[in-house]
Amino acid sequence: MKLIKVKEAIQSDNDQLAGQLRGKLKEEKTFLVNLMSSPGAGKTSLLLQTTAQMKHELRMAVIEADIDSSVDAERIVDSGIPAIQLQTGGFCHLDVPMVQQGLGALDSRGLDLIFIENVGNLVCPAEFDTGATIDVMILSVPEGDDKPLKYPLMFSKCDALIVNKIDYLQTSLTDFDLDLLEKRVRKLNKNINIFPLSSRTGEGIELWSEWLSSKVYEHNS
Amino acid sequence: MKLIKVKEAIQSDNDQLAGQLRGKLKEEKTFLVNLMSSPGAGKTSLLLQTTAQMKHELRMAVIEADIDSSVDAERIVDSGIPAIQLQTGGFCHLDVPMVQQGLGALDSRGLDLIFIENVGNLVCPAEFDTGATIDVMILSVPEGDDKPLKYPLMFSKCDALIVNKIDYLQTSLTDFDLDLLEKRVRKLNKNINIFPLSSRTGEGIELWSEWLSSKVYEHNS
Repeated sequence: MKLIKVKEAIQSDNDQLAGQLRGKLKEEKTFLVNLMSSPGAGKTSLLLQTTAQMKHELRMAVIEADIDSSVDAERIVDSGIPAIQLQTGGFCHLDVPMVQQGLGALDSRGLDLIFIENVGNLVCPAEFDTGATIDVMILSVPEGDDKPLKYPLMFSKCDALIVNKIDYLQTSLTDFDLDLLEKRVRKLNKNINIFPLSSRTGEGIELWSEWLSSKVYEHNS
Repeated sequence: MKLIKVKEAIQSDNDQLAGQLRGKLKEEKTFLVNLMSSPGAGKTSLLLQTTAQMKHELRMAVIEADIDSSVDAERIVDSGIPAIQLQTGGFCHLDVPMVQQGLGALDSRGLDLIFIENVGNLVCPAEFDTGATIDVMILSVPEGDDKPLKYPLMFSKCDALIVNKIDYLQTSLTDFDLDLLEKRVRKLNKNINIFPLSSRTGEGIELWSEWLSSKVYEHNS
């Protein structure tokens, strides 16, 4: 009981900070994407593909969050995109003060688009507003089409759902049903934008990047 | 700072309760397995295969934990194994009082082996002792072989690691390296037992079930 009250107070402070951060980023014409998924759904690979697609038109950077490692940030920096790594040291999600630390370290002014790669987790990150302009989640085909039944809050709060690893649909290894998934997701979130794609083959990356690009121009203009 | 202190106090209470529960289960000759993984790594499918393999020799039951649904418990009950569903209502892990509620609802006396299917999450469940006799985790091949670098606590605390969906290794869709994974895991946990298997094809299930069965007999005799 006591834990829950502490959590609620922290969340309410966090919500207020998130609103302030969103306002500041709007003024500064910087679009912030909070990217969430299970471990191994392909957040870093998606970021590599997306930034490659958009790097000639937008100034971008990435804030990587992990419990304890910096392998993801290194992959991003190797691709020519500035990145910083936040080690959460056990924390299972990012909150606004952690995101602000990341933005400070990047010197976010002058950037058009910043991605936050949140901790790999479908539970806790769904509960904490990061102050991002939009929330995006990845579900990968091998995880199964039943995930909206089990993690409804995450599916409810996102502006876009990326269904990654669609190249696995062509094998007999999975009975993942894309139509059934969409039906389950729309029950929770009628207007969510769904992008089936494969970060490995590149299929579907263009549609997703074009949608994101139009959102960035709309926000920053 | 305040949150961390609350968390530490709760964890210390929980550790004490966990020790007491482990002692009680030893006396009652009941073996309790805490099964953890990311969402969609295949916890329920593994339980269906494992209980089918062992149901002629052991009296078993399953405690399912989910944020919000009962689809997993229904699959277990349909297979002829008693199961109860704990809906955590937002909590990202199980603690001892929640497990005790499950054991009470099952009437655990007279059972040889009980499985807890923890919330799908590689972060928070690693931090909370459930009072189980052993901790087991599943990593599935599509998640990637870099997960020990990112979620070291989970890999450090488990007695056994199941590498599920090894049928995916035969495709060109993944560059997962089983030897590299093992090397990374053993750096964190020298004596962990590793079982590569596929819950879909049944490959490797027998070796894992035999190991578990021998642990149960050792504990309960």
